[in-house]
Amino acid sequence: MTNSYNNALPALETVRIRDEFWGRTMDLVRNNVVPYQWEALNDRIEGAAKSHCIENFRIAAGQAEGEFFGCVFQDSDLGKWMEAAAYLLSQEPDPELEAICDEAVALMGAAQQADGYLNTYFTVKDPQGRWTNLKDWHELYCAGHLMEGAVAYYEATGKREFLDIMCRYADYIDSVFGPEEGKKHGYPGHEEIELALVKLYRATGERRYLNLAAYFINTRGTKPYYFDQEGEAREGEAYRQHIPGYGSNPGYEYYQAHKPVREQKDITGHAVRAMYLCTGMAEVARETGDESLMQACRTLFDSVVNRNMYVTGAIGSNESYERFSFDYHLPNDTVYGETCAAIGLVFFARSMLTLEKKAVYADVMERCLYNGVISGMSLDGKSFFYVNPLEVWPEAVAKVPNLYQHVALPRQKWFGCACCPPNLARLVASLGKYTYDYNGDTLYVHLYVGGAIDCGMVHMDVDSRLPWEGRVTFNLSAENEELDLALRIPAWCQGQFTITLNGKTLPSEIGEDGYAHIRRTWGEADEIAVEFAMPVLVLRSHPALRENVGKAALQRGPVVYCMEEADNGPKLHEFLLDPQAPVSFQYEAELLGGVGTLTCTGRRLVEKDAALYTAQAPETEPATAKLVPYYAWDNRGVGELMVWMHTL
Amino acid sequence: MTNSYNNALPALETVRIRDEFWGRTMDLVRNNVVPYQWEALNDRIEGAAKSHCIENFRIAAGQAEGEFFGCVFQDSDLGKWMEAAAYLLSQEPDPELEAICDEAVALMGAAQQADGYLNTYFTVKDPQGRWTNLKDWHELYCAGHLMEGAVAYYEATGKREFLDIMCRYADYIDSVFGPEEGKKHGYPGHEEIELALVKLYRATGERRYLNLAAYFINTRGTKPYYFDQEGEAREGEAYRQHIPGYGSNPGYEYYQAHKPVREQKDITGHAVRAMYLCTGMAEVARETGDESLMQACRTLFDSVVNRNMYVTGAIGSNESYERFSFDYHLPNDTVYGETCAAIGLVFFARSMLTLEKKAVYADVMERCLYNGVISGMSLDGKSFFYVNPLEVWPEAVAKVPNLYQHVALPRQKWFGCACCPPNLARLVASLGKYTYDYNGDTLYVHLYVGGAIDCGMVHMDVDSRLPWEGRVTFNLSAENEELDLALRIPAWCQGQFTITLNGKTLPSEIGEDGYAHIRRTWGEADEIAVEFAMPVLVLRSHPALRENVGKAALQRGPVVYCMEEADNGPKLHEFLLDPQAPVSFQYEAELLGGVGTLTCTGRRLVEKDAALYTAQAPETEPATAKLVPYYAWDNRGVGELMVWMHTL
Repeated sequence: MTNSYNNALPALETVRIRDEFWGRTMDLVRNNVVPYQWEALNDRIEGAAKSHCIENFRIAAGQAEGEFFGCVFQDSDLGKWMEAAAYLLSQEPDPELEAICDEAVALMGAAQQADGYLNTYFTVKDPQGRWTNLKDWHELYCAGHLMEGAVAYYEATGKREFLDIMCRYADYIDSVFGPEEGKKHGYPGHEEIELALVKLYRATGERRYLNLAAYFINTRGTKPYYFDQEGEAREGEAYRQHIPGYGSNPGYEYYQAHKPVREQKDITGHAVRAMYLCTGMAEVARETGDESLMQACRTLFDSVVNRNMYVTGAIGSNESYERFSFDYHLPNDTVYGETCAAIGLVFFARSMLTLEKKAVYADVMERCLYNGVISGMSLDGKSFFYVNPLEVWPEAVAKVPNLYQHVALPRQKWFGCACCPPNLARLVASLGKYTYDYNGDTLYVHLYVGGAIDCGMVHMDVDSRLPWEGRVTFNLSAENEELDLALRIPAWCQGQFTITLNGKTLPSEIGEDGYAHIRRTWGEADEIAVEFAMPVLVLRSHPALRENVGKAALQRGPVVYCMEEADNGPKLHEFLLDPQAPVSFQYEAELLGGVGTLTCTGRRLVEKDAALYTAQAPETEPATAKLVPYYAWDNRGVGELMVWMHTL
Repeated sequence: MTNSYNNALPALETVRIRDEFWGRTMDLVRNNVVPYQWEALNDRIEGAAKSHCIENFRIAAGQAEGEFFGCVFQDSDLGKWMEAAAYLLSQEPDPELEAICDEAVALMGAAQQADGYLNTYFTVKDPQGRWTNLKDWHELYCAGHLMEGAVAYYEATGKREFLDIMCRYADYIDSVFGPEEGKKHGYPGHEEIELALVKLYRATGERRYLNLAAYFINTRGTKPYYFDQEGEAREGEAYRQHIPGYGSNPGYEYYQAHKPVREQKDITGHAVRAMYLCTGMAEVARETGDESLMQACRTLFDSVVNRNMYVTGAIGSNESYERFSFDYHLPNDTVYGETCAAIGLVFFARSMLTLEKKAVYADVMERCLYNGVISGMSLDGKSFFYVNPLEVWPEAVAKVPNLYQHVALPRQKWFGCACCPPNLARLVASLGKYTYDYNGDTLYVHLYVGGAIDCGMVHMDVDSRLPWEGRVTFNLSAENEELDLALRIPAWCQGQFTITLNGKTLPSEIGEDGYAHIRRTWGEADEIAVEFAMPVLVLRSHPALRENVGKAALQRGPVVYCMEEADNGPKLHEFLLDPQAPVSFQYEAELLGGVGTLTCTGRRLVEKDAALYTAQAPETEPATAKLVPYYAWDNRGVGELMVWMHTL
């Protein structure tokens, strides 16, 4: 493996998550989400919308008769499900689950065509359509998800069959696409295969896969546009009449295919696609050392997190085409903020962190994970949000559907064609992959999630009280190993932390990378205890973010808080926070599965007369508000929500 | 004429408007808008979209060959144009214009069918469709606009031909609709004919017209729904599948036809329709003395102005179906605020004022006229807004069309199928009708518009400095007439005014009706001088109006002000008004055709670093802002607009 960057992610099986906060979510994924989804893929959930995903594979395999049913990207559901299942297996043996997976692998093998092609839609329904519409038909996207599943399953079980299937498919794809004459010079409309090919390359050492990933990225957005060419080949002159623009056919910005990726300075288009592209770019850059590609990643990361991200880590402010709108246009109520997009930002930040160690990447990853990602699932794991707004007025959602119909209240049961729930499952099940990095003799700790890591150099048990308390304890066993233990200092502690080594306080220095480095030769039993301050942060937005002028949001530790009608009654906007007044924190074990809550003070507008407009100054009375974690909102019936509060 | 209410509007020809402020707009209507529209109706404007309105009448009259072209309500354009032209003729003779009108009347006469029916769409294109879809096909709406034109033309010229044509049509309509067996028990989907029939009744004394207006109003929204019945008669069972709801077929709330009008407590649906209905209700109530109908009018007026009206007088906060959304949902940016709807609110307020003398009705009328109505036209009279937003971020309008595509920037040239421009023309041309009322021996002055009124009892010359100065002078000549001169005390003067009679100060008392009453026996030459204070009002919204929490708008006299990018640069939201600081007023003769402007002080947010979110308190620096009248915005190139400013 040629790698100019001495970075490696620990294999998932070397990390065990044993964390009070994340354990609950992982248990839900293991016990509810993954089993439920398998039933759904097999159409065995009564009353649920038909998935037909497995049946499509059976028909493609010649094991059943019938028509294809579902979205053009229906196959990807199985890929994501296999990936989530694999991560679960890497954490804990489960012969029953593994047997089901093996069965699915055999089915995929049977559905694969002689040339390696594997896509049930085009095999069953439209054989002539193969590779004729990369822009919209998700063929390479489905291939990518299946590849990710194959790599995860191989890493979890050591079984090669699925991996081999996907290598055959990748080899075939490589024979179709590339710079050589006679090959198609295309790239996918929905990015995903790029990052998957890098994973396949790492799993197999087959550099052609990396090259193909790089080809897709480097060719993207170059002129003449491939999407024009394939469109004209398919439809003739008619195609030209409906590009670009909004309406039924959005412009190529939507696909991040309007310019070569290195010329893209602003994040644009469909938020999930954009994140998958950026992740693929960072992964290719990591393997190739391509500095111009790295710089493109940095530019786009900056564009996302400094001009286009909500405080919850949600991205994609525009419901129309689930996309980014433009810098500082971040409405709290009409936002899309797809769960999958926040997940994609975790992927992107994770890849950047592998590329270069900067705590800011981990800060963003953590912001998404504790807020805009897990807000996508109810506390019982049974219902899901696609859209994650920061402000909700249920009456407006019901009565002004043209602005708010995408805001589905409450969370919806997950049936049929579904992207966010399995995406959330595979992310949570693989949380260990996001927690640590090796770099030379440095062990980086990015996230403070309880558990253990056993990585050759060192065995380390981690006990974390996050997110409600700032105490994390590491028990290391390393037998005279010299090692730099690099602990990320989260921005939310505002530089206030203490580190003790076997009871003795160490100097609290933060490196330029945002990590505290403890370099020493470790013994058989050392204890590092870290205590991060958890001040309640009264957050303000950049002045250009017009939606939030005069408003503040509260954050404590990694958790962003919100007001809900359940605690504060309706008309949340009538509360005006006093930003100077102290805010109290309390842990409430009985509330929302156990959460920290905040109580803050301010004043409340008084409705004194009926006039809509008056020259009288507003009348207010003293008031308090109770805030709960944003991720836990909408678990107590439909009501108002407000993250950004008005201030005095 | 049976009339339990001793109210009468002065005939328009007894009022002459000679006002510096309104004169400019009236001149534009006379010299630009009305002549231009006649050319447009005749398809003689090169490059303009085809109107075909006159040609449709020619074809219906058998004077030309061809197909009907245009909207189903294309005939109404001629009705509104005739009405505007008639008002101009009542103010000043114009033989050329009158000859054109006479020609148009002759054409309408020729197009009228033997049974009295007059509608070019159904005559030329769909004879079988006559009266089969009252809900959507605007037949009675077109009839109403032609009736209004006919009454205005009769009053202006004394010529009966157009009036007779419309009486024949009204007689025919009366033979088709009504409570009697064998008649259709329907009512129009777009209200308008109700108020027009009352005008026709007043012009002719023919009580059947009043009865038919009352029938349409009283039958509206009763069960079984007529719209269901005609829909099923037309389409059978298929019709039931698409009512009610949003999408292609909105619910009957859209048509104000979901409940009998007396049971409607909240203003709802298409804003223009709602206003025309309410106006018709008030006019019928005025003639019949129906107290339950009056009470329904009061309830709906209260719903509009105290919960659903913008500070500019704009109404209809929802772009979808151009309708009211619900109480206190008044977004400043996604608002529709159709010019025609503000005009409709003037009609409604005017009718309420005739029904009962309360200054609040005139206050609303004045608020609309000086703000949300004339904002619909550019200062040169050549371009028009349908949509009148209170906050505009042009980049968002361009890049987030799903939220803002209805906000057309800048004002658009008016071509083809157009409702607002001719509506504005007929309102402005008839401003004299909105200015005064008689009631017994009381002469009410509702609006302070310069000119003269000569009404038998009294001749009065009025000189008004409004809206820039608060001085109004009345020179009366009445020869021993005892008369109560009732002067409306506008809410904006906050009770601060002085009245002098022949130089002697009178007591400043405001009656319960909101008017100052000066009852005396008047001589040959009396002078009343009124001086209204014009404090700059720092307006605040009702606390339930969430959009405006922490914001203020400035008003001086009847004029609502706004910040524009042209004066303040971009990012208007970064200015924070100090609501306590003095605001200075200056008249700028060279700016925007001569306007008063305001200069206010506060602070401006400073963009100090790139971070999107920070725990630092916002940094600000001292700043001033210049405000111009809202009606004059968007006359200096596309830029940001903001009526409701953030405050310190």
